[in-house]
Amino acid sequence: MAVRTDVPAVVALLSDDTLGATREGADALESYFAAFDAMQAEGANHLIVGVGDGAVVASYQLTFITGLSLKATRRAQVESVRVAAPLRNAGIGALLMADAEARAREAGCGLIQLTTNRARSDAHRFYDRLGYEPSHLGYKKALG
Amino acid sequence: MAVRTDVPAVVALLSDDTLGATREGADALESYFAAFDAMQAEGANHLIVGVGDGAVVASYQLTFITGLSLKATRRAQVESVRVAAPLRNAGIGALLMADAEARAREAGCGLIQLTTNRARSDAHRFYDRLGYEPSHLGYKKALG
Repeated sequence: MAVRTDVPAVVALLSDDTLGATREGADALESYFAAFDAMQAEGANHLIVGVGDGAVVASYQLTFITGLSLKATRRAQVESVRVAAPLRNAGIGALLMADAEARAREAGCGLIQLTTNRARSDAHRFYDRLGYEPSHLGYKKALG
Repeated sequence: MAVRTDVPAVVALLSDDTLGATREGADALESYFAAFDAMQAEGANHLIVGVGDGAVVASYQLTFITGLSLKATRRAQVESVRVAAPLRNAGIGALLMADAEARAREAGCGLIQLTTNRARSDAHRFYDRLGYEPSHLGYKKALG
């Protein structure tokens, strides 16, 4: 689990990404800290970091969502999986997903899910390889 | 918001669906009630019902998810949108989504998102019409 002082390192990971480069901003650190605090209050919403040599080198968000559908199957939702650029393509992403699946099982989830931008073809191959099925379309709408 | 006694009616809505017919089961009512109770404990996870003539005729699930990505944009996630069969194609689905967007804005969300099965082509047209962008692929994996 991440601690509050990990927030700037996680923001750096989110920013160092083809899509994230244009939509994150370390100038907005206050709002990232506020979001981290709010996540702690939402009991089933976790920020996970991977640490190597004392530094945060990977992160993802894991949210447990109880619901009635699928015979009341609890779901785990993965968001914002990131690995530091110098360490990519070395198997760390697969370790993060294995960690997410283990935490999901422990929380009683019968399903793990995520969405990934259609432009991320490398990510599609990655999730295919790990046994994820691209069975759904992911729709988003900005709220003005 | 749904109350506990609405649970059987919501399960009936979930079951009366091309995909739900094979994957829901009113025989498992105990687990649906337990999931409803667990949702109440997860503060940002809501079951909403639409009532007409004293009966539950529509439902959806709305979960608010705080996170660091997109400059700490809070997201609203919609799941399991259902309308009673005799009332379909009469604009109730659009009312449900308008209700979801209003609740999402009130909760400080800057984005609303959902996934829908690739087989639901009617649903794709519906969300397209409401201004949702199918920008993502939705991956799922059962946890054995």
